[in-house]
Amino acid sequence: MAETQNESLIDEAMRELGVAARRASASLSAAGSDQRNMALQAAADKLRQRQPDVIAANAIDMRNAQARGLSAAMLDRLMLDADRVDAMANGLENIAALADPLGRVIAEWRQPSGLHIQRVSVPLGIIGIIYESRPNVTADAAGLCIKSGNAVILRGGSESFQSNLAIYECVRAGLTAARIDDCAVQMVPTTDRLAVGYLLSSMIDTIDVVVPRGGKSLIKRVQDEARVPVIGHLDGICHVYVHEKANTDMARDVVINAKMRRTGICGAAETVLVDRKAADRVLPALLAALSDAGCEVRGDETVAAANSTVIPAVEEDWSTEYLDAIISIRVVDSIDAAIEHIRTYGSGHTESIITDDVRAAEKFLGDVDSAIVLHNASTQFADGGEFGMGAEIGIATGRIHARGPVGAEQLTSFKYVVRGTGQTRS
Amino acid sequence: MAETQNESLIDEAMRELGVAARRASASLSAAGSDQRNMALQAAADKLRQRQPDVIAANAIDMRNAQARGLSAAMLDRLMLDADRVDAMANGLENIAALADPLGRVIAEWRQPSGLHIQRVSVPLGIIGIIYESRPNVTADAAGLCIKSGNAVILRGGSESFQSNLAIYECVRAGLTAARIDDCAVQMVPTTDRLAVGYLLSSMIDTIDVVVPRGGKSLIKRVQDEARVPVIGHLDGICHVYVHEKANTDMARDVVINAKMRRTGICGAAETVLVDRKAADRVLPALLAALSDAGCEVRGDETVAAANSTVIPAVEEDWSTEYLDAIISIRVVDSIDAAIEHIRTYGSGHTESIITDDVRAAEKFLGDVDSAIVLHNASTQFADGGEFGMGAEIGIATGRIHARGPVGAEQLTSFKYVVRGTGQTRS
Repeated sequence: MAETQNESLIDEAMRELGVAARRASASLSAAGSDQRNMALQAAADKLRQRQPDVIAANAIDMRNAQARGLSAAMLDRLMLDADRVDAMANGLENIAALADPLGRVIAEWRQPSGLHIQRVSVPLGIIGIIYESRPNVTADAAGLCIKSGNAVILRGGSESFQSNLAIYECVRAGLTAARIDDCAVQMVPTTDRLAVGYLLSSMIDTIDVVVPRGGKSLIKRVQDEARVPVIGHLDGICHVYVHEKANTDMARDVVINAKMRRTGICGAAETVLVDRKAADRVLPALLAALSDAGCEVRGDETVAAANSTVIPAVEEDWSTEYLDAIISIRVVDSIDAAIEHIRTYGSGHTESIITDDVRAAEKFLGDVDSAIVLHNASTQFADGGEFGMGAEIGIATGRIHARGPVGAEQLTSFKYVVRGTGQTRS
Repeated sequence: MAETQNESLIDEAMRELGVAARRASASLSAAGSDQRNMALQAAADKLRQRQPDVIAANAIDMRNAQARGLSAAMLDRLMLDADRVDAMANGLENIAALADPLGRVIAEWRQPSGLHIQRVSVPLGIIGIIYESRPNVTADAAGLCIKSGNAVILRGGSESFQSNLAIYECVRAGLTAARIDDCAVQMVPTTDRLAVGYLLSSMIDTIDVVVPRGGKSLIKRVQDEARVPVIGHLDGICHVYVHEKANTDMARDVVINAKMRRTGICGAAETVLVDRKAADRVLPALLAALSDAGCEVRGDETVAAANSTVIPAVEEDWSTEYLDAIISIRVVDSIDAAIEHIRTYGSGHTESIITDDVRAAEKFLGDVDSAIVLHNASTQFADGGEFGMGAEIGIATGRIHARGPVGAEQLTSFKYVVRGTGQTRS
């Protein structure tokens, strides 16, 4: 009974968020570029001004997290200090400085009928963002949505609730300062998981797209329950293929960077495929460098035979996203075998070929069907900033709408604007 | 028990379609533009060659339909004769003549890191198309999917099963002639509705997008049950707004065309909004022309007072898609009232403003949030052919991925192709 009552209260609260978002969406999409940028600047100013309040709110989350025994890594993700709050404010200013993603004429042409047709970018509408731990997502996500004219409903992790709330209030103040309906950014007012279920399955007529950002269990839940469209990715099992004609030093440097620069991001490499014709030349240098960098190697028979520190890989290794200083290495017989391995075990995220042979590179770039394919570059470049998008809300591996880094431009839709002189259709 | 057994047989058959589609998808997406066009041409040739077989198959459907008492309009939609089969073959040739939607470099730029980034169009993957009555959709939809490199699973209406099968066999023969895995186009081998349920809810990992094409109950079922992304539209409640500064003759001609050219298509106008300042001038000419054209008018008080033939409109009229020679007319106080009416009752499909005032037109084009907005032109231009897309599979009113006419280009995704010289990320 208590639960049913709770559920109906949550449903009612979510419905209210939806109604307010719809109304605010009209206010935000009618706001010009200057007005949206003013909101972003004002939010950045507020964040700097209220920095002590934000850090105090974060201290409550940190105390609760410590009491619940969260890991050191989780605590570090949660923690806010003066530098991190300032970085959030800088992030909002960077978003303000981006080109306006709205009102762009993506294409235009004239038809034989005399009609002049333009395809013009417009906001998507209302976006739901479900995320975990890092409180900076509150500022980043809200900022990208304001920039792209989308109303947003934010649902952060329960462990960062107080921090998110403090940041959120700065963003709302920014909207108010720019005379935009401040319900353009809203936060789900409860940490109850029922609210997420309602958002995913009962707000089909309100939410245009949901962007999940967090660990695998969160993304899995969103993908399983969502009746609304989802932009995101479940796995980032990224590959580096060292081709027969790879430069040894480049192969070593790119693999070390692709794995070790940051092991916990989705663009980190998880598997290296070494062409059999390059194995004798490349493997010793590669294994030595990985060992020096403190990376555990799980290899197939050939790799394990090359060095006693290599742990024999099992089938499961080829489909594991370690997100840690662990890498799997397999020797493949050909570029076709490499592509087939990626087709079988990959997650469609990011793959790189290292080779001096342009024809082999073009074959790999053409045949590998991932969101991002690279030639002679680290998979860690899979990032909106490195793509020149200024900021991103995540990487999408789906094939509908957005693919690869999702920035402000990817949070837009378009409409056709057609100008005539009284044309009727025959 | 029998039903459970039947269900498991259908599930198994659908799974097999999925596996074959995945395999054929690789074959089709690896095929070059010439090869895909060869398949389309060969399919067109086969259709002409087997025309008597197609018409004979259609005769079976027609006899069954007559026995089931289908309406004359339904029978006409179902019927195939020599001209209609030839039109299908021409349609496939027209699709072959379109520019290749694959491998287009949509954008390219160089980053400060030295990386050269291209966004290149690729197939979506595997498309499910669920449609009713008109057998020509079998050829059109298969043709657009072949052109855009997408494997497709077709599910036509039970009333056109034999016709669809005969057309489908010509398309398969075309694929074989072009040495493409002919499972790139597959047809659900049963008319059992369970197969649609399985396709919509259990093929999340196989089907990349579903395109429903048919009546409202079909589309509603698809939208309600689909766990896969859907591109389509439920309603086409299109408006023409006759502004204060509209030319009387143009307003009359555009409204007559927008309603009466073909009343059964989704781009047909259902409601005319007449600005109060233009009502005395425009209404008499408009009502006379509609009466001459045999169109029933349902009007608000002002409109009903203008002519005794006008039936008083009720609230429901403003949200009704008549798809018939019926139109609703409402007098509005201002352009803002017109935009508000469209926001309240419209379906986001297509709306037109008739005015000689460019500022009013720009306001309307900017503020009305529909897939297609027109100035001084008929809503019946909401069509892929009229947009220069060559052929379309439907009109989308969703905001994700495709919006407006869905042609071969809209059936593509993209990937990022990144070329470096050994870059690692700092």
